[in-house]
Amino acid sequence: MDATRIDISADVGESFGNYKLGNDEELLKYITSANVACGFHAGDPGVMRKSVILAKELGVAVGAHPGLPDLLGFGRRRMDISPGELKDYIVYQIGALKGFTDAAKIKMQHVSAHGVLAGMIAGNEGLAKAMVDAIREVHPDLILVARPKQYTYEIAKQSGMRVMRLIAIDLQYRADGTPIIERKKKSADALEVAKKAVRLVKEGKMATVDGGDMEIEIDSLLVHGDGPNVVEIVKAVRDELSKGNIKAQAYGRN
Amino acid sequence: MDATRIDISADVGESFGNYKLGNDEELLKYITSANVACGFHAGDPGVMRKSVILAKELGVAVGAHPGLPDLLGFGRRRMDISPGELKDYIVYQIGALKGFTDAAKIKMQHVSAHGVLAGMIAGNEGLAKAMVDAIREVHPDLILVARPKQYTYEIAKQSGMRVMRLIAIDLQYRADGTPIIERKKKSADALEVAKKAVRLVKEGKMATVDGGDMEIEIDSLLVHGDGPNVVEIVKAVRDELSKGNIKAQAYGRN
Amino acid sequence: MDATRIDISADVGESFGNYKLGNDEELLKYITSANVACGFHAGDPGVMRKSVILAKELGVAVGAHPGLPDLLGFGRRRMDISPGELKDYIVYQIGALKGFTDAAKIKMQHVSAHGVLAGMIAGNEGLAKAMVDAIREVHPDLILVARPKQYTYEIAKQSGMRVMRLIAIDLQYRADGTPIIERKKKSADALEVAKKAVRLVKEGKMATVDGGDMEIEIDSLLVHGDGPNVVEIVKAVRDELSKGNIKAQAYGRN
Amino acid sequence: MDATRIDISADVGESFGNYKLGNDEELLKYITSANVACGFHAGDPGVMRKSVILAKELGVAVGAHPGLPDLLGFGRRRMDISPGELKDYIVYQIGALKGFTDAAKIKMQHVSAHGVLAGMIAGNEGLAKAMVDAIREVHPDLILVARPKQYTYEIAKQSGMRVMRLIAIDLQYRADGTPIIERKKKSADALEVAKKAVRLVKEGKMATVDGGDMEIEIDSLLVHGDGPNVVEIVKAVRDELSKGNIKAQAYGRN
Repeated sequence: MDATRIDISADVGESFGNYKLGNDEELLKYITSANVACGFHAGDPGVMRKSVILAKELGVAVGAHPGLPDLLGFGRRRMDISPGELKDYIVYQIGALKGFTDAAKIKMQHVSAHGVLAGMIAGNEGLAKAMVDAIREVHPDLILVARPKQYTYEIAKQSGMRVMRLIAIDLQYRADGTPIIERKKKSADALEVAKKAVRLVKEGKMATVDGGDMEIEIDSLLVHGDGPNVVEIVKAVRDELSKGNIKAQAYGRN
Repeated sequence: MDATRIDISADVGESFGNYKLGNDEELLKYITSANVACGFHAGDPGVMRKSVILAKELGVAVGAHPGLPDLLGFGRRRMDISPGELKDYIVYQIGALKGFTDAAKIKMQHVSAHGVLAGMIAGNEGLAKAMVDAIREVHPDLILVARPKQYTYEIAKQSGMRVMRLIAIDLQYRADGTPIIERKKKSADALEVAKKAVRLVKEGKMATVDGGDMEIEIDSLLVHGDGPNVVEIVKAVRDELSKGNIKAQAYGRN
Repeated sequence: MDATRIDISADVGESFGNYKLGNDEELLKYITSANVACGFHAGDPGVMRKSVILAKELGVAVGAHPGLPDLLGFGRRRMDISPGELKDYIVYQIGALKGFTDAAKIKMQHVSAHGVLAGMIAGNEGLAKAMVDAIREVHPDLILVARPKQYTYEIAKQSGMRVMRLIAIDLQYRADGTPIIERKKKSADALEVAKKAVRLVKEGKMATVDGGDMEIEIDSLLVHGDGPNVVEIVKAVRDELSKGNIKAQAYGRN
Repeated sequence: MDATRIDISADVGESFGNYKLGNDEELLKYITSANVACGFHAGDPGVMRKSVILAKELGVAVGAHPGLPDLLGFGRRRMDISPGELKDYIVYQIGALKGFTDAAKIKMQHVSAHGVLAGMIAGNEGLAKAMVDAIREVHPDLILVARPKQYTYEIAKQSGMRVMRLIAIDLQYRADGTPIIERKKKSADALEVAKKAVRLVKEGKMATVDGGDMEIEIDSLLVHGDGPNVVEIVKAVRDELSKGNIKAQAYGRN
């Protein structure tokens, strides 16, 4: 971890057909890495092209954001897929997005599994191995998003893969490091989030809801595109980082 | 055209989930180029992986077989998609398949649009241009399957793209070069088809249903995997080509 | 046509999963008939239940709004489906919605095909016959939305089916009766639309863009839920109708 | 339970678009109740119509066979759906099939959840309640397929719903009543299955793999359409039942 620079990431490209989700045009102005949906839980070929082109124009690094094959449930419902199925779904989705990064003449930076899929993989050795294998097969220099102490992280590190550790900066955390997920996302205090971000980068510490501090090393600050005031938050984070002489920079460009 | 060798191609990988279509295991033993479905009109990530691996093991060149986003209609129903939509669908599907050819460490050889989509593109300048642009953007050394005098062929040639001309060898043709499509595929006389294939390669001529001959230059003999006796036909074609000292060889390996 | 009352209808229930479209909660307060999407071009089982319940609570009559099986294209792309396929798709979609109207203990009032499907049916005798047959088979007392002089209307009338004639009140029309479709919906002048509605109901006349008048008899005033100021428009229409002593009432309740 | 008659049921209508599954034409000649897929895990509107018409012609009672929204996984992968989602999926699918039974002027007899969904519901009180509520809302005189001692059965009985108890006659069972599921279905000895069926109806007893007997009361003998010799089995069952003076009859016609 480097106290002089940090990546800021968000999920984008989650619109589908006639359905628009989020405010990617604004959000992409302030982040450094974009997780682009690949057509399973969200996204479609047209949305993927637009997202990749916009990210390129704004200098944002692009990563794949593969999900479960459940558009109806937005990839948020656990499904009993086998490691073999997961591997094939990941290869397919990374490949599909790579079509658009190839078309835009940019390099894909990373892979970040969507929602419940990330949790399924992190907690299951077979799935974590399948995830790492998929990336190694198709595009071994991709960076994998993962959290320390979880299967995804451990197996990726063992295989020599570069890992991007992240934390959702717009959530509150318990002392045990688990986030508090609200059923309906509420506005967060932008300045408070921003100050939390700066402290996290500089000191590797973050206050938890029980009044204590947790120590954590991270490579990327994740913001949620569907938060009601996400653009305000990410602007404030950029401002505070800048005041603290911390550079916002895509992790893969270190 | 070269009277000493010829490509033999077929559509494969058109199973989906629990549904099995065709007899790819047998068919792949006798063809030299495989058009692998990409998950829109047919195919799924698991089927794509299996098809690519089997093709590799049997020395068969792999191409993408993109289709319309209509699994229910098996991509056989004309849909009014725009050139921009087509381009995105092609980039997506080629990319997805390239995930699996990358994973298998083989090169993708060609692109062959599925069924009614091929016809839509061939007859519409805007769509043909979009198809050629998609390939050039994502993977410019791919060979495009097309027929002379049609938009796809003309625009691909103008852009310097390599083209594979093919004819469905198991169909009967009218004097004007159009095939006779039966509602329900019937068995064809395997030896007759095989002799037609040899004559086509050696002389560039094929008998038509009205008793005459048509002249045609082709690079690949297409057989339909869903014909009732396709394996028998393709075996007979291989035998007769061999007797005629014509080598069956993937077009891209010339 | 009856100068003392009129139906006001709109398409609703076009959200899907995590994707929200339109402002049904507001719109349903002002219309008298709701066309509820049935899960093909838009809508899903959860959205259908909510739409039916909300319509019931607000006293709005419910109709089926079947579409093409093309969620990606929102049912707005012509597809070459056969009359047999259409008939089955209509029976399926009406049946599915009837599940929810049965659950809510209300009667389904009508059927109104979505977007390009309505146009395909109106202009094709075979499809129009299939549409009418589907309704007769499954629920013969449903009212079919159609326009005079088109196949749907003529065949429905011949078969003794009740027909609801409508006009999109928030569009401008040419002298030949065809509407001017904007690529991107613009705000309409709410009061102007409302005055147009009153004149239409009272006199059966509507101004066209070339400065003349067209004569037209209608049973329902359709407003587009995706217009930027649709709620303002439909409020104004209700106000002006009320001032003109015209009752807004679901057509099937006449 | 009645030792003089028994229902014989099977899942049918699981083809989709261009994909054919099973041999419904033959199977329907020998069963008395058909579980027709409803378009979620399998089946499509055209397949549903054909299945219902064929069942009617052969005097077979029709039931809904709703599944999880996972065509790719054929509804065989557990998905974390909520009771509310389940209820809506069931209402939708029953409604859709009822479109076709209404069109065919026959009564729908029963509901039998597909594969892993049946197991999910049977073991979860909230889902079982949602299933029963869905049926009560939309079509309360339907018979629900369930197994004694499971939530589905208990809640259905408490609510006064008629229940059809069944056993898969072509499987082997352990002493605890659980079936032995083979990864790949093997042929079963048709005569042995048939004799097992007769004993089950007459004596309420069935041999288990550990050499003992289990006592069980059932209303329907289920055969699996995807077993390699299912037609042979069901023919043998019919023959042996007939020899034993047991009438094969749809349960709902008792």
